[in-house]
Amino acid sequence: MSEFTNVTVVREANVYFAGAVTSRTVIFPDGTKKTLGIMQPGEYTFNTGAAELMEILAGELDVKLPGNDLWDRIGGGESFEVPANSSFTMKVNTLTDYCCSFLG
Amino acid sequence: MSEFTNVTVVREANVYFAGAVTSRTVIFPDGTKKTLGIMQPGEYTFNTGAAELMEILAGELDVKLPGNDLWDRIGGGESFEVPANSSFTMKVNTLTDYCCSFLG
Repeated sequence: MSEFTNVTVVREANVYFAGAVTSRTVIFPDGTKKTLGIMQPGEYTFNTGAAELMEILAGELDVKLPGNDLWDRIGGGESFEVPANSSFTMKVNTLTDYCCSFLG
Repeated sequence: MSEFTNVTVVREANVYFAGAVTSRTVIFPDGTKKTLGIMQPGEYTFNTGAAELMEILAGELDVKLPGNDLWDRIGGGESFEVPANSSFTMKVNTLTDYCCSFLG
């Protein structure tokens, strides 16, 4: 278990896919943002603005990254990066707890 | 939309009912705690330790409070309190975003 200290948290959730994916926004003293989220099992495609680092805290999913025809399996303690202005698809196999950092 | 500033957030989610209810813990400078959570539709009984103030940010549920034989309907912008060391049951009708404050 770890903590983020001296941060701002937006109270209201971010809701995607009718609530199958939800997150809370955390803003750091330097202005950078992360979201802490939960994904129910299912398949989801997201578009990125900034590049993203997706850290999987618990759960399991398969991800297809831009320019990749194969699915990569990602479990708790693993992570992947997604380029800016792209899209990626996740097949979430079990309830997944994640931390998404917006890069650059 | 509102924000909690100068707080600590526990990174890992709290997971209940196989992920149908999840939350994040927010710790304030005075040591008090709130959780920001999401409930999928369903029926859930929770036990309290400390008394709780449940603020419904979005969604709709029916709650049966201790000593009450009737269900109260609660929607976004409404709240209810639950006594310490008791239990309460919620029938969540639509995806519900909540803020739970632990009192006393």
